Amino acid sequence: MDIVIVGFGTVGQGVAEALSRKAPTLQSAFKEKLRVVGVFDSKSYDVSPKGLDPREVAGRKQKLGRVGPELNGKGVLEILEEVDYDVMVEVTPTNIKDSEPGFSNMMFALSSGRDVVTANKGPLALKFKELSRTAEKNGGRLRFEASVGGATPVINLSREILMGERILSIRGIVNGTCNFILNRMKDEGLPFDQALREAQEMGYAERDPSYDIDGIDSAAKAAILANAIFRRDVTFHDVRRTGIRGVSLEAVELAAEERKVVRLIAEVSESRLEVSPRLVPIGHPLAIGGTLNIFQLMTDLAGDITVAGHGAGKMETASAILSDIVALLKEDCASRKKEA
Amino acid sequence: MDIVIVGFGTVGQGVAEALSRKAPTLQSAFKEKLRVVGVFDSKSYDVSPKGLDPREVAGRKQKLGRVGPELNGKGVLEILEEVDYDVMVEVTPTNIKDSEPGFSNMMFALSSGRDVVTANKGPLALKFKELSRTAEKNGGRLRFEASVGGATPVINLSREILMGERILSIRGIVNGTCNFILNRMKDEGLPFDQALREAQEMGYAERDPSYDIDGIDSAAKAAILANAIFRRDVTFHDVRRTGIRGVSLEAVELAAEERKVVRLIAEVSESRLEVSPRLVPIGHPLAIGGTLNIFQLMTDLAGDITVAGHGAGKMETASAILSDIVALLKEDCASRKKEA
Repeated sequence: MDIVIVGFGTVGQGVAEALSRKAPTLQSAFKEKLRVVGVFDSKSYDVSPKGLDPREVAGRKQKLGRVGPELNGKGVLEILEEVDYDVMVEVTPTNIKDSEPGFSNMMFALSSGRDVVTANKGPLALKFKELSRTAEKNGGRLRFEASVGGATPVINLSREILMGERILSIRGIVNGTCNFILNRMKDEGLPFDQALREAQEMGYAERDPSYDIDGIDSAAKAAILANAIFRRDVTFHDVRRTGIRGVSLEAVELAAEERKVVRLIAEVSESRLEVSPRLVPIGHPLAIGGTLNIFQLMTDLAGDITVAGHGAGKMETASAILSDIVALLKEDCASRKKEA
Repeated sequence: MDIVIVGFGTVGQGVAEALSRKAPTLQSAFKEKLRVVGVFDSKSYDVSPKGLDPREVAGRKQKLGRVGPELNGKGVLEILEEVDYDVMVEVTPTNIKDSEPGFSNMMFALSSGRDVVTANKGPLALKFKELSRTAEKNGGRLRFEASVGGATPVINLSREILMGERILSIRGIVNGTCNFILNRMKDEGLPFDQALREAQEMGYAERDPSYDIDGIDSAAKAAILANAIFRRDVTFHDVRRTGIRGVSLEAVELAAEERKVVRLIAEVSESRLEVSPRLVPIGHPLAIGGTLNIFQLMTDLAGDITVAGHGAGKMETASAILSDIVALLKEDCASRKKEA
């Protein structure tokens, strides 16, 4: 399996590290060579048909700020035309406005029957149907466990392990920053603005925090779950969205008196698609503290199943991408066994 | 796929119901006929090469107390000799002393290359190696998601979705009855004996509660996790086991003062295998209330991932068995695709 990594920020570098740590085990488990044959950041690239040392490329990026020769105005896709690869790991920065450059990168790979593994929410939350149809038409596979919940395996759990269940609804906390802020308001009696500043100082929230606190990030993830698990055809814009900007300290304190907490909940089902602050009783799984992501799946036979994990972080996100690569390796291995 | 159900108590009847509800969807998804060709309880049986209506058999069992003609001293395996089947669903009552009749039933199926799907802890906690070796030698598959955590997909999550991770340890609450008792002690200030009586009145605990409160059930599950996920070769007897009989109300109240709860925790890793009451800080995932089962997996890349669900119940346990059947169907389907 020959892999190209497109986008080489934190997540891309995490994928490089995960691959170099795990390649030996995976190669022997699946009897398939696992190589990184190309790495692209926004202004430079490195390719080798014999395989790069992904850790070496990551070291170069950290030292020099680039991975190899500069693109010099050439497009990534122009160079990729000449590269022989099986799987594109697409981890360029997410763009919830026009989904680029992720969308074009993914379409390029899927149109030629390649597989795509991605953490990039923008294209999935805006143009899911186009991507999944292109994959299907050309025999490529599109996997995106890392796009929702980081390391939390909500998509593969729902679509693979729980394939025999009818999933009735998913409610989840998909943005650790909002959860951190709501927790600080409750635990320390901080007003919203102060809790937000603290989150920014700790590096949880961006300088422009709108993406998190206005529920944009959560809504993108809700749209992806709706498309992937409930086979709906929605975009980010279809999500009924209320953020946490309007949550007052008084509301948080009043909730606490009734043994409840305020949580920014994404709810998805065949008929619902909503992100909004809700009251959750203490002791309920969704009352979880910290910055973890959590999903409560209501199913017809198993009842409710809850899964929680780290929603962000370099190696955590890389681990979800790796789990998708492993799933591809496994399918390929099952196919080869039968061919033999 | 032709299935025989061996054992037709609550769980067996749940499997029958789950299969009749899901067969149409699964058959069309996997292009494979799904039939129940035999049902056995402890004293009667019903077989048909053309397939039984599992719901009808369950109705008969509920009305008449048996599923068909009496065995009349004949053994189940004697009759099974004449039945053509692919998968044995083994759900006879668990026996932690000598693992029978489950062990002989499973060995019979696995020796002839059949697949076994089971919820039966006894054989897995006492003779795992023998079962898995027999499966491997004869090309049969042994699956047992339902044996640990009921509907909670801890085994398939660990072995399939998280295949690329190194799982460093699992800590879990695997006995809902103990958790119920510990919660009642804390929430209502009940002494142990009274909380236990309440659990018995509500049908959570057996008349002889030793199996739950002395940690026997939890230890059996810990041994299964050690064998299945850490590839160890242990039995139930290797588990360091302390139950909750010695947990005093004073201890529970003292813990509460420090914002902690007492939980019966099973801990499994490459080097640990233990069931014991532990102090868990409130807010920690393992401080979960109610009768849910929960597992916290520590992994090398993803960090900690937590999964929770219903540890018992007719349809909940049946759902885990169904998830194993779906996994078999999926593998078969991948094979057939390549043959074609």
